[in-house]
Amino acid sequence: MRHTGKTAGEDVRMRGFAQRHTVDAALAWLDAQVTELHPLGTEILPLRSAAGRVLSAPVVSDVNVPGFDRATMDGYALMADSTEGATSYTRLPLTVIGDSMPGAPFDGLVSAGEAVRIMTGAPMPPGADAVLPAEWVEAEGMSEAKDKSPQRISALASVSPGKNVGRCGEDIYRGTTLLESGRALRPQDLGVLSSVGQGEVQALRRPRVRLAVTGNELLPSGTHPSGFHIADANGPMLSALIERDGGEVDFPGLVRDDPKAILEALQADADMVIVSGGSSVGIEDLAPMLVAQHGELAVHGIAMRPSSPTGLGRMGRRLVFLLPGNPVSSLCAYDFFAGRAIRALGGRSKEWPYRSMRGKLTRKISSPIGRLDYTRVKVDGDLVEPLSVGGASVLSSTTRADGFVIVGEESEGFASGSDVKVWLYA
Amino acid sequence: MRHTGKTAGEDVRMRGFAQRHTVDAALAWLDAQVTELHPLGTEILPLRSAAGRVLSAPVVSDVNVPGFDRATMDGYALMADSTEGATSYTRLPLTVIGDSMPGAPFDGLVSAGEAVRIMTGAPMPPGADAVLPAEWVEAEGMSEAKDKSPQRISALASVSPGKNVGRCGEDIYRGTTLLESGRALRPQDLGVLSSVGQGEVQALRRPRVRLAVTGNELLPSGTHPSGFHIADANGPMLSALIERDGGEVDFPGLVRDDPKAILEALQADADMVIVSGGSSVGIEDLAPMLVAQHGELAVHGIAMRPSSPTGLGRMGRRLVFLLPGNPVSSLCAYDFFAGRAIRALGGRSKEWPYRSMRGKLTRKISSPIGRLDYTRVKVDGDLVEPLSVGGASVLSSTTRADGFVIVGEESEGFASGSDVKVWLYA
Repeated sequence: MRHTGKTAGEDVRMRGFAQRHTVDAALAWLDAQVTELHPLGTEILPLRSAAGRVLSAPVVSDVNVPGFDRATMDGYALMADSTEGATSYTRLPLTVIGDSMPGAPFDGLVSAGEAVRIMTGAPMPPGADAVLPAEWVEAEGMSEAKDKSPQRISALASVSPGKNVGRCGEDIYRGTTLLESGRALRPQDLGVLSSVGQGEVQALRRPRVRLAVTGNELLPSGTHPSGFHIADANGPMLSALIERDGGEVDFPGLVRDDPKAILEALQADADMVIVSGGSSVGIEDLAPMLVAQHGELAVHGIAMRPSSPTGLGRMGRRLVFLLPGNPVSSLCAYDFFAGRAIRALGGRSKEWPYRSMRGKLTRKISSPIGRLDYTRVKVDGDLVEPLSVGGASVLSSTTRADGFVIVGEESEGFASGSDVKVWLYA
Repeated sequence: MRHTGKTAGEDVRMRGFAQRHTVDAALAWLDAQVTELHPLGTEILPLRSAAGRVLSAPVVSDVNVPGFDRATMDGYALMADSTEGATSYTRLPLTVIGDSMPGAPFDGLVSAGEAVRIMTGAPMPPGADAVLPAEWVEAEGMSEAKDKSPQRISALASVSPGKNVGRCGEDIYRGTTLLESGRALRPQDLGVLSSVGQGEVQALRRPRVRLAVTGNELLPSGTHPSGFHIADANGPMLSALIERDGGEVDFPGLVRDDPKAILEALQADADMVIVSGGSSVGIEDLAPMLVAQHGELAVHGIAMRPSSPTGLGRMGRRLVFLLPGNPVSSLCAYDFFAGRAIRALGGRSKEWPYRSMRGKLTRKISSPIGRLDYTRVKVDGDLVEPLSVGGASVLSSTTRADGFVIVGEESEGFASGSDVKVWLYA
């Protein structure tokens, strides 16, 4: 099916891209859109599904933690005065009048010469102002567990008031801001939120991403390639990338190279549309023209390799990414543009989620001035070997590679032996 | 409820731990168990849920990718010979006899002087051995799209045989091992697997972890702390940590400080049991004795701070971790021991999943020889400030902290201004 009059597609194909944007210019446009569209909105989540999510409001505690004075060691709660002068030579007698267990406080008052056996975390009984650790105490004969008569012990050391007591509010004061808006929740943050009684959090909504994988030559993932039909590689790859970056994928299946089907995807109920395939200027490259017709095609053609036939645009409030169908180009264009926007709109760092290292090139990398290059490399210790691979279609190069090196557009590349920065695939 | 006769619990409590294991000794015991128990077993997963999972068998391709010779550029498929000598001054005429689109090959043979308009990824027609890029061609008048008469074009340059053609098997040869056993699947790995027709993978089973949070003083997460009862912080925190490390959490709710309930958890249908709370040597510390009675309590008491009252053991083939109830101790003991085992049993690196950096201490850290210290720090640029916090119960210190510094047991600490390694909380 053709979408244009007799020659428009061919005219464009003959020309190639009229001009290519620099990567920096493309990123500048993209970042401006993200700033305009952020935040997408918020939602209330139960704590158990909040790990890694980004807070959209600060959390203030409305309780003290702990809510009461408590023992920070196992031992005996008492008046510090009752131990004054005690040493292993000058033992001071004490009468144990009961137990304080976590959640089961001693129900009474501690007076001079008395002690309450207490466990770590248990409430301090009224009257007591210190805990004498168990190892500084000697029991004087054991009473039977059933025997309710008071037990006699001896203090072998003295403690000062407040010793081994955790004060009410010591961990968290009521009214304290525990976590700021924008925080990506760590496991221990969930612990803190739970300890102040929060069962829910208010988080940024995850960007909803409609993934439209086009190409009449494609068979759905899970199908054996057959004849001149190939199995979709980009659907599973891009889905995993979108989820890695905190997006919510909507990938209902392959889209025919058909303007109506592609336009429907471009108008999906989503924050972002990623179209894979048909992003260039050929006859079957429908998506760029549809975006230009129905929205804004702000960037089309970028001075980078691979991924030069990448397009960026808007359809209303939807960000649109047109990624080349070649899997390596698709991965590279995703990492440079789509992933960045998903992370940023979700409230995360727009930077790559890859670790980096420095290493020494075993072979030179050449790249013309004016074009950015994304070179897959293997890493062995601190040696960095560029993979010599045919083209952008060789997806297996990204599974053989440990990561990639970026040659900026102002650079002609790196000589063999250069110290280079490597981004490591996670 | 008491689990022993009249004095056993108290005797132990008076003594404290008979001896503490070093962290290294505890890790050595743990690593030996993991080696014995690994692998846990395998399962078949659909590709769409395989991201991040670990292969339990190598994947060998049973197809070539691509399965046919194809164009790597938009242009004209032809015999390279037909362009010999062509320049922009010496234009050579060609007759376009049809189109080859991805998935829709040209159905015929290309002879000398003929060309087939071809798109990137489309099958090369029989007879053609090169693709002349579109920009090296000039059309001689346009034929109407409906007009079936052949179109005339001129070659402005020559191409050599094989130029701009991707060979059958260029990306992946049939019989090639694509990914080795033990590989944690990256997004692009899913793409490669999909491109060879794999809809499923054979992966290591995720370790199943029964989480038993004990403590009669605890209220379930989501409940407001009230009176002498506190809200469970460890359940949500440990659940998130277990999932981060690739484990499958079974956390049916809080467990009473009751030997029957704790024993039931210790005998759960799981690969691992993590007991939070009651791990020390006090009266209510039931778990260590239950493990010793019904299994093996290999390590109890570790020379580290926090987390010294940590226990490691076995109940049959189950690994058992007894973590202190104090949230910071719990986090630290999880990171040192339980998380390591979950990652290793799941086929991942046993090392911490934290990034590290080096920085300069703004204040000294002291630690006695013979004890390892886990010190929470704040990071500002390359300045590293130890947090001065009361005790192990101050969970909010781990949310204020950016990471931690480890002082080994052989060290007395670091002077102010020292260059130290910081592990950054994710």
